[in-house]
Amino acid sequence: MSLKSSHHPESGTVAVILAGCGAKDGSEITEAVSLLVALSQQGFQVQCFAPDRSTHDTINHLTGAPHQTMRNQLEESARIARGRVQPLSELRAQSYAAVVIAGGFGVVKNLCNYAVAGREAHLEADVRASLLPFVTARKPCAALCIAPMVLALLCKEAGIKEAELTLGSGAARDAVAALEFWGSRHVPTQPGQACIDAKNHLVTAPAYMYDDATPADIFASAIALVAGLSKLIETSHRGS
Amino acid sequence: MSLKSSHHPESGTVAVILAGCGAKDGSEITEAVSLLVALSQQGFQVQCFAPDRSTHDTINHLTGAPHQTMRNQLEESARIARGRVQPLSELRAQSYAAVVIAGGFGVVKNLCNYAVAGREAHLEADVRASLLPFVTARKPCAALCIAPMVLALLCKEAGIKEAELTLGSGAARDAVAALEFWGSRHVPTQPGQACIDAKNHLVTAPAYMYDDATPADIFASAIALVAGLSKLIETSHRGS
Repeated sequence: MSLKSSHHPESGTVAVILAGCGAKDGSEITEAVSLLVALSQQGFQVQCFAPDRSTHDTINHLTGAPHQTMRNQLEESARIARGRVQPLSELRAQSYAAVVIAGGFGVVKNLCNYAVAGREAHLEADVRASLLPFVTARKPCAALCIAPMVLALLCKEAGIKEAELTLGSGAARDAVAALEFWGSRHVPTQPGQACIDAKNHLVTAPAYMYDDATPADIFASAIALVAGLSKLIETSHRGS
Repeated sequence: MSLKSSHHPESGTVAVILAGCGAKDGSEITEAVSLLVALSQQGFQVQCFAPDRSTHDTINHLTGAPHQTMRNQLEESARIARGRVQPLSELRAQSYAAVVIAGGFGVVKNLCNYAVAGREAHLEADVRASLLPFVTARKPCAALCIAPMVLALLCKEAGIKEAELTLGSGAARDAVAALEFWGSRHVPTQPGQACIDAKNHLVTAPAYMYDDATPADIFASAIALVAGLSKLIETSHRGS
C-alpha cells in the first residue's frame, strides 16, 4: 500500500527553512512537522535548509532559562529533518519551486534580529542572500506564525510595497507595527485561515500566533498554508 | 472559528510518553508531533511525561557522531511539548484513560536498555513503576514504531503471554525475535495500519519501522494508532 500522493509531480521541489529545533530558540517543532506532513500529503518533494551557525541563544524549554552551551542551527534542525538538511548558504532559488519558512522564535533570533533590534532589524546575510532571489523572481513564498517577519524584511529589501501578510489576530502589536513600518500590510486571520497575496505570490498563516492554539489548530494552519502555496505554484506555472 | 473537536469529552486525559527530542537519542519528532495532532483532532486532552534524567547518549543528528555534552530527557522533551511536560515519576495510571508511547531510539536507549542489552534488556525503574499499572489494569496502551518493545517488556513483567504487537513488516529481525522471546507475538502490518490486541487493550503501529516512510505515512500511522486507541477506550468504558 502506498500512501504517497503525487498531485504535484511537475511542480518541482519546495525548500523548507528551519532555524534550530524548539519554539524558544529555533523552529517551532509542531509547526515544522505539520508543514512537512502537509507538503508530503500534497505530494511535494521537500529539501530542508538551515543556517550552519550557532543559535542566538539556547533556552531550556522546561524552565525558560538560558543554557550555557550553544547549539548549531543546522545540527539541531537535523533532528526535525532526520538528518536531511543542507546549509542555507547552499540554497539556490532557481532549483526550487517555492520556499516555506516555519515559525518559532528562531525566526526573529536566528534568521533576522527582530527579537533584539525591533524595527531596526535586518536579515542575517545568509538568509538575505538565499531568500531574496525567491522574492525578486516572484517565486511563491510561504511563512507560518512569526515567520512573515522575514518575508516583510525581504519585501522591504526588494522594494515591494503593501505586501499582504498575516500575524494572526494582530494581538502581537509591536510585530504588526514593525511589519507595517517596513512597508507591508497586516491582514488579520483566524487560526485555520491563510492570507494569500496573489500579486506578490506570498502566503502566510498564524499557527501559534494564537497562543492557545491546539496541535490540531496548528496542523489546520499548515494545511491552509500549503493549500495556498499549491494555488500560487499552479498560477506561476500557468503564467510562465 | 473553533477547530477543537470534542468527540471524547468523557474519556479523560491521555498520557503521552516522550524520551527526549530527536530520532537518534530521544523521541522521533515527526512521530511525537503526529501523535499529538492526531490526539488533538480526536478531542483528547493530553499530558506529556518524560524521565527527568540524562539521555543514554546525545547524537549529532547531522553527522551521527556523539556529542560531548549530555542532555536531560525532560528538558529536551519540553521542546516537543512546548514546556508542558512532567517527570515520568509523577505519572499515576489511575488519573489517565490511556497511555501512548512515541517511537525513536530513545525508547530503546532511555526507557529500556534494549539498544545495548538486546534480549537481556530491562525497563528503567521509573518506566516500570509508572507504566506497569496501566498494563496490569488493562488500561489502553498505544505505542508507535519501536515503542512496542516497551509494551512487550511490560507484558513480560505482568505475566501476559501472546500479546499481539507490531514492528511493521518484521524486517527488524532482532527486535522481532526479542519481542517474541519476551512472550509477545509479532503481527506484521503495512505503513498506515495499526495492530489491535483487543484482549489486552494494546494498539501498535509501525511509522518509521518503514525507513522510507514519508511524513504523510507517519501521520497516517499516528491516525490509525489513535483510531485504534479510541476504540479500546470506548470498549473499556462500556466494560467498566
